[in-house]
Amino acid sequence: MIQVVKEYRVTLPAWIDDELADVPEVVPDREDRMRLVHRLADRNWREGDGGPFAAVVAEQDTGRIVSVGVNAVLTTGVSSAHAEVVALGLAQRTTGGWDLGGEGLPSHELVVNWRPCVQCYGAVLWSGVRGLVVAGEGPELEEITTFDEGPLGADWAEQFEARGIKVVNNVLRDEALAVFRDYREAVDSGDDVVVYNARGGAD
Amino acid sequence: MIQVVKEYRVTLPAWIDDELADVPEVVPDREDRMRLVHRLADRNWREGDGGPFAAVVAEQDTGRIVSVGVNAVLTTGVSSAHAEVVALGLAQRTTGGWDLGGEGLPSHELVVNWRPCVQCYGAVLWSGVRGLVVAGEGPELEEITTFDEGPLGADWAEQFEARGIKVVNNVLRDEALAVFRDYREAVDSGDDVVVYNARGGAD
Repeated sequence: MIQVVKEYRVTLPAWIDDELADVPEVVPDREDRMRLVHRLADRNWREGDGGPFAAVVAEQDTGRIVSVGVNAVLTTGVSSAHAEVVALGLAQRTTGGWDLGGEGLPSHELVVNWRPCVQCYGAVLWSGVRGLVVAGEGPELEEITTFDEGPLGADWAEQFEARGIKVVNNVLRDEALAVFRDYREAVDSGDDVVVYNARGGAD
Repeated sequence: MIQVVKEYRVTLPAWIDDELADVPEVVPDREDRMRLVHRLADRNWREGDGGPFAAVVAEQDTGRIVSVGVNAVLTTGVSSAHAEVVALGLAQRTTGGWDLGGEGLPSHELVVNWRPCVQCYGAVLWSGVRGLVVAGEGPELEEITTFDEGPLGADWAEQFEARGIKVVNNVLRDEALAVFRDYREAVDSGDDVVVYNARGGAD
């Protein structure tokens, strides 16, 4: 019989414990939730675990933290393990199922440090979250980091809203760009930073 | 310290062994690879493990099977575990890293039983595959199954080609639709089939 691998795991890096040591169970202020995201994103690339991206799933009304995610492409070896996918998967594992908008659950929001790439755009759509909070949108992310985010329609936010997902934009936008700039500076200075997703065109 | 879940696993269902029992390591004919996809997709919804979707990663030139995936949303409780994401993640676990187009690797193709949803569209873009083989595209999938596939630009195939991913369309298209129709019939007849992704609009 043909032999195939039957399982893969997506795991947070060990350093996450350091970063969560002083984080309370409930972070009521939205900007504070984004500050946590920026901190994790910054630490993530410095540790060499993936791109400068992180995400948090929180209960929308209370700010209770349900899960955290970082871009784990390099540590897991799985290209879909972007911060949003990781945080959503871990939140679903926490709440007990594939639908974070399921009956009996509080409303959830995903907090992330830029408008999602096209993959994570879809991942958010199908996750059951009721809110998406982003630090910003626009060409700066691709310009600074050189990551290809893929084609996304100009009506991306309207498409979320049409499916019952409220979008909040421009939360600590400058702080997001500062993380991206530090990352880029390290890449340019020849530090051992892997730009893992830079295939912006054909060979 | 805040307690969060730190890992999730994506695992193929146990019945996959049955279906792979007679599959050779190399399936040189593209239609035969799609036949395998259709068979897995059909079995998957009948087993109640997720939607009627499956995918195979193969070496492009030889047809050697690298991994198989099925929609595992219901069994894993992870909404991103679509067939494409599962097959790509398992292929990357098999080949040793996040880039199926990495140096020293043969070219890989993903074979799947319809044009990917917007999430999996991105997942394919970032996976490193050099080819995408689909049974078909068009509104039939959404019409028959009621699944929301998300907004995807009319130039979806051109966007793949611009990134070095060759698209082959219309491989056993009618057979794909037959699987979707059987699924829909079971849903309509009141069988215990969970349409897990049907939130097509706001509450």
